[in-house]
Amino acid sequence: MGVLGCFTAVRGASARWLRQHVPCRAWGQQASPGRSYASGLPQTPPTFGFLIDIDGVLVRGHRVIPAALEAARKLADSNGCFRFPVVFVTNAGNCVPQVKAQDLSDLLGVQVEPEQVILSSSPLKFFSKFHDKQMLVSGQGPVVDHAWNLGFQNVITVDELRQAFPILDMVDLERRPKDMPPLTTDFPPIEGVLLLGEPVRWETNLQLIIDVLLSNGNPGTGLAVAPYPHLPVLTSNMDLLWMAEAKMPRFGHGTFLLCLESIYRKITGKELKYEALVGKPTITTYQYAEFLIRKQAERCTRGGPIRRLYAIGDNPVTDVYGANLYNHYLQKNGKGEVQECYEEIKKKQGPPMAERCFSILVRSGVFDPSMKQKETTFHGHRDFIFDPSLLEASFVVADVHEAIQLVFCKEGWDHV
Amino acid sequence: MGVLGCFTAVRGASARWLRQHVPCRAWGQQASPGRSYASGLPQTPPTFGFLIDIDGVLVRGHRVIPAALEAARKLADSNGCFRFPVVFVTNAGNCVPQVKAQDLSDLLGVQVEPEQVILSSSPLKFFSKFHDKQMLVSGQGPVVDHAWNLGFQNVITVDELRQAFPILDMVDLERRPKDMPPLTTDFPPIEGVLLLGEPVRWETNLQLIIDVLLSNGNPGTGLAVAPYPHLPVLTSNMDLLWMAEAKMPRFGHGTFLLCLESIYRKITGKELKYEALVGKPTITTYQYAEFLIRKQAERCTRGGPIRRLYAIGDNPVTDVYGANLYNHYLQKNGKGEVQECYEEIKKKQGPPMAERCFSILVRSGVFDPSMKQKETTFHGHRDFIFDPSLLEASFVVADVHEAIQLVFCKEGWDHV
Repeated sequence: MGVLGCFTAVRGASARWLRQHVPCRAWGQQASPGRSYASGLPQTPPTFGFLIDIDGVLVRGHRVIPAALEAARKLADSNGCFRFPVVFVTNAGNCVPQVKAQDLSDLLGVQVEPEQVILSSSPLKFFSKFHDKQMLVSGQGPVVDHAWNLGFQNVITVDELRQAFPILDMVDLERRPKDMPPLTTDFPPIEGVLLLGEPVRWETNLQLIIDVLLSNGNPGTGLAVAPYPHLPVLTSNMDLLWMAEAKMPRFGHGTFLLCLESIYRKITGKELKYEALVGKPTITTYQYAEFLIRKQAERCTRGGPIRRLYAIGDNPVTDVYGANLYNHYLQKNGKGEVQECYEEIKKKQGPPMAERCFSILVRSGVFDPSMKQKETTFHGHRDFIFDPSLLEASFVVADVHEAIQLVFCKEGWDHV
Repeated sequence: MGVLGCFTAVRGASARWLRQHVPCRAWGQQASPGRSYASGLPQTPPTFGFLIDIDGVLVRGHRVIPAALEAARKLADSNGCFRFPVVFVTNAGNCVPQVKAQDLSDLLGVQVEPEQVILSSSPLKFFSKFHDKQMLVSGQGPVVDHAWNLGFQNVITVDELRQAFPILDMVDLERRPKDMPPLTTDFPPIEGVLLLGEPVRWETNLQLIIDVLLSNGNPGTGLAVAPYPHLPVLTSNMDLLWMAEAKMPRFGHGTFLLCLESIYRKITGKELKYEALVGKPTITTYQYAEFLIRKQAERCTRGGPIRRLYAIGDNPVTDVYGANLYNHYLQKNGKGEVQECYEEIKKKQGPPMAERCFSILVRSGVFDPSMKQKETTFHGHRDFIFDPSLLEASFVVADVHEAIQLVFCKEGWDHV
């Protein structure tokens, strides 16, 4: 893990230490001693950090939200280096962190490092027992790089599977094989399914994933009885909807998963199970975010403890629900959770250190306050209970700039 | 409706009448007086007719099933003209009857007329109150021709809608608009949705259909509350699965509908409703099939009444369920059904005349007899109750040739 953006809005020993030890990617350019926020700051480093969602908070589709530029100016110094621990936590999955970091840097005019970007899939790094398995990977864009980046060494794409078994993909009349191709017999059995993000051609992906599950990884064969439990399915990003330029929300990976779950249930009469389900609102994502925030803080402020996390997002069932769920987890001091993966991650990155995680809901994205009273439909994933208290944000504000101002005020940094 | 293939396996007055009045498309070539089946036949014309499914019964994917050729030889004379009333009842929807009839003629070596082909969508001809509405049509292949063929005069394809509102279709990163296109404001409001068969790019079709329903036909706008009841949705073909060359069944239009229903329910908390749902196993399709069989019989045998229908198919939840459901309807003499459309069709084509409809299940397609004992999962559509008695075929045979032989034996035509 490299050195991240750090906080230059500190003075005295911390500031000197920063100048000596912390190479901002443009760390060669040190913060100007004359910059306005350098006066009147508390001596102690911040004991809080930010988890900031991207779509609907910083951008809508290709457009940057103006308030995001103001927020970035508040969070960074005049050299574009972050002055507070910040991670960008997105459920977008069809990219690699390097690309997302570069996109954010370009859009916001600040220096975002790949280690500040948590993609929906990032916690899959911890599921190492599947990393050497033959995994069918679904998604779009550079899915093989993406899977490799997470540690998966043997992946097969849906398109490769389709080419090996062309008679499986029959929905598109134009793509059906004209002749009966010879049967493929030497294809390696698939040992698990890795769903990284919404693919294109859902009909093909849904069909081939179902084929793999019903055939126990040998889609050229037909089994009299589909195995159950089925092969392990690891999944990231369960967002049903997200907000782009259109006036109504767009389908996310959660909509694809909903289709997959519905088809599996209809065909087999049983529920599709996930061996891993990561990304907001799962605890795994927040565990990982806290870990990265702590690392930033340790590197930049000589171990200043991070006690409060502020999670800013636009989606009640993703950002608010997740932050509140993690807050519950923190209240229990990371105990009482039974999912094996939480313990595994805890073992690898240490127990949680934060005391609270606050949820801040912005109105610049998918959340429509006019729907609040009418809304009785839970857009969260099937595997998360509908608990209305988890959908109640700690704070509701107009946009990310207001959110940052609120936190600064609450934390006594409002003179920054 | 033109003159259809007819039955030349009759003698005496009927045969003379046939020779004089019935122009087999090759009616110029009269049946050879010396052909083997011409001897020992009953004097009366047949009082039964066939409804034959196509996929899994006559063909699997591109391959004709050998038994289908034998069956065709039994059903037709040496000139390839049908000797019995036969309609081909398929739930395939992405074509027009002319093309399907030609395909069948080529595959089976018999003369199949377009009027002998009942597509899943064919009963939509009777839903005339929607024929002048602005309908969004989903499917693949020549969907506009297909809709026109059924009487719909104002259709818009999903692709046309996508081009008018490019910011709606956001799943495929490659197809997202690079710049913010100008808003379309003069697009005619959509008044209904016509789902003819499984489309390609399900993500696009699902998204745009949901947009149309949630926006009450104006997908560029965003409504605070989605209208309910939503715009009328007319649908044909609800087959969940069908059998092609692969060892496991393939997705049909029913799988697409399942996705659409699941997404609509998840987003709105309400059920998607169909104003029309046609194709097997609905009664509308069998009403129409009986009507066409009666027309064939009337034209070819001076009004010989058709009393028994034999429905041959490979799919328990489609072919068997549908035939049994229609048999119940016949037992009640076409009474007791409340759906408006049944009455409408009855008004247009007369009451049912048949007394029984038998279901014959073949093992050459999607039906897997080894699954029978284990099968507890209903693959029928949501709107059809799971009644195990409706899934019990009158007869189960190996293939369509055995099915024809069985009927001939039962009807006393086994010397044919």
